[in-house]
Amino acid sequence: MASDAQSVPHYGDRLASAVRRRASAIAVGLDPDPTQLWPGADTATPGASAADAASDAVTAHCRRVLDAVAPACVAVKLQSASFERLGAPGVRSREQVADHARDLGLLVILDAKRGDIDVSARAYAQAAFDGIETPWGPVAGSASDAVTVAPYMGRDSIQPFVDAGRPSGGGAYVLVRTSNPGAADLQERTGASGEPFWSLTARIVAELGDDAVDAHDGLTPVGAVVGATAPDRLERLRELMPRTPFLLPGVGAQGGRVEDLAAAFAPGPGAALITASRSIVGAFRESGGDPADAARRAAEQLRATASRLG
Amino acid sequence: MASDAQSVPHYGDRLASAVRRRASAIAVGLDPDPTQLWPGADTATPGASAADAASDAVTAHCRRVLDAVAPACVAVKLQSASFERLGAPGVRSREQVADHARDLGLLVILDAKRGDIDVSARAYAQAAFDGIETPWGPVAGSASDAVTVAPYMGRDSIQPFVDAGRPSGGGAYVLVRTSNPGAADLQERTGASGEPFWSLTARIVAELGDDAVDAHDGLTPVGAVVGATAPDRLERLRELMPRTPFLLPGVGAQGGRVEDLAAAFAPGPGAALITASRSIVGAFRESGGDPADAARRAAEQLRATASRLG
Repeated sequence: MASDAQSVPHYGDRLASAVRRRASAIAVGLDPDPTQLWPGADTATPGASAADAASDAVTAHCRRVLDAVAPACVAVKLQSASFERLGAPGVRSREQVADHARDLGLLVILDAKRGDIDVSARAYAQAAFDGIETPWGPVAGSASDAVTVAPYMGRDSIQPFVDAGRPSGGGAYVLVRTSNPGAADLQERTGASGEPFWSLTARIVAELGDDAVDAHDGLTPVGAVVGATAPDRLERLRELMPRTPFLLPGVGAQGGRVEDLAAAFAPGPGAALITASRSIVGAFRESGGDPADAARRAAEQLRATASRLG
Repeated sequence: MASDAQSVPHYGDRLASAVRRRASAIAVGLDPDPTQLWPGADTATPGASAADAASDAVTAHCRRVLDAVAPACVAVKLQSASFERLGAPGVRSREQVADHARDLGLLVILDAKRGDIDVSARAYAQAAFDGIETPWGPVAGSASDAVTVAPYMGRDSIQPFVDAGRPSGGGAYVLVRTSNPGAADLQERTGASGEPFWSLTARIVAELGDDAVDAHDGLTPVGAVVGATAPDRLERLRELMPRTPFLLPGVGAQGGRVEDLAAAFAPGPGAALITASRSIVGAFRESGGDPADAARRAAEQLRATASRLG
């Protein structure tokens, strides 16, 4: 659509194509807790360190989850914290899981919520996307399709992710109105203009997105994280960010209802992804039976519900 | 002072003691760029991957910097982004550098600017502090003395760091008014009450700190990142957060002047740490000569200037 024929399509276009192709707007969330893995994930080699054994089990668990649910999904959202707490082996596990997700045709969203001054934001963006040239040769990045970014430090802490994503068609989802109760503490405070703070952030996200693409139709590569727990905010958020891809956490365990999210989906395929973690991966704890079967059913059900929204 | 005799002193007390003991309020910042290491850092084993070779060189470089400047410093601030872009080997390098800093008697501040919903914030806090129990045994955390935290998601995204730090006397520095130009985009916006946004954040930080300790004197374990580039904000920030340890980036390369920071230091030892990275590690690029000698001189000079402030 908007992209130069010579170059990789930008994230907004890639996302829209992927959602159409897979007929799904679901991003399965993986936030593995080593004490809550699916039965049978333990593949430890005797003598491995606890960090290595736990990381290998996490990888095996995540691969099994992805094998079960990938057909119902368009993306995976990797909660970086869950992997990082296992140290260097955990980071290796995160990369292995991302590779497996790509093999299954999924987009990979690195949920890392990074944000720092420009030079450090560039380093985080190198880690998330294409890596870095060193005197010892190129070091690969995570090759993520998108990464979540925190906005408190302002435009110059977000822009490096937009710039670094461009060559490979990667995008950024900026926290705008999050799904947790603490969102009330700062995001919901009202500015002098009468606007809530999330609205100021939304304007910045829309501007960064418009600046990032030439075309005036379609989605931009700069997305927004918008909690499904505050559906009354969605219409206004969509108005402020008409071309912005939304990532919608908070469905299921956190209380959000898919039926309330129609405004997010209005611009068309890719305009919104629903992300669900515990309600898919832990579905067997409620339903009983095989974890993979229960996860597949939960993901398919979520996909079907979402598909009625646009 | 405030702590129960049975338990580890909290971060505010540990910080004050360390600043007194070392007669320094300087935190050297390490944000290694593999293309800008000190000459001679290359220790690559033949056949090592680029990520391993670059990470080993980064470790060697950082150890040499620390050996040179530790006597003038009380802490090291590790910019996590710089290590993470080297993947799992980079995370291992970060741990090795932290170990070396501890051997030299420095506090370790993990500059990671994490922030996420409660369950994920707990995972990041496990990574930064004491690690996690797994079915394969305990996996160690980074054993940091403090970690930087982003506030956009509110209290419930910060509290897990305060809670997880308690057993080992670890603290958190919350971004309040940062040193970059982008700080104007959101932090400097005015709320309906007429207060700038950084002031709302400062109130939350002060409350979390007061809640974290019983005693009504001394520093709290919940700190604030306050850019040295906005010295006109310092007096008000100190008023809003009278017992909060400040971490002051932005001196040197970013334009902040130590002489303008007296208000931050007023409450006494530990009340403020000045962090400087490029102006210490890269001092030889201006002065010429041996990188270690130039770094030592720059750190000693910064220590002397800061010591006149309180």
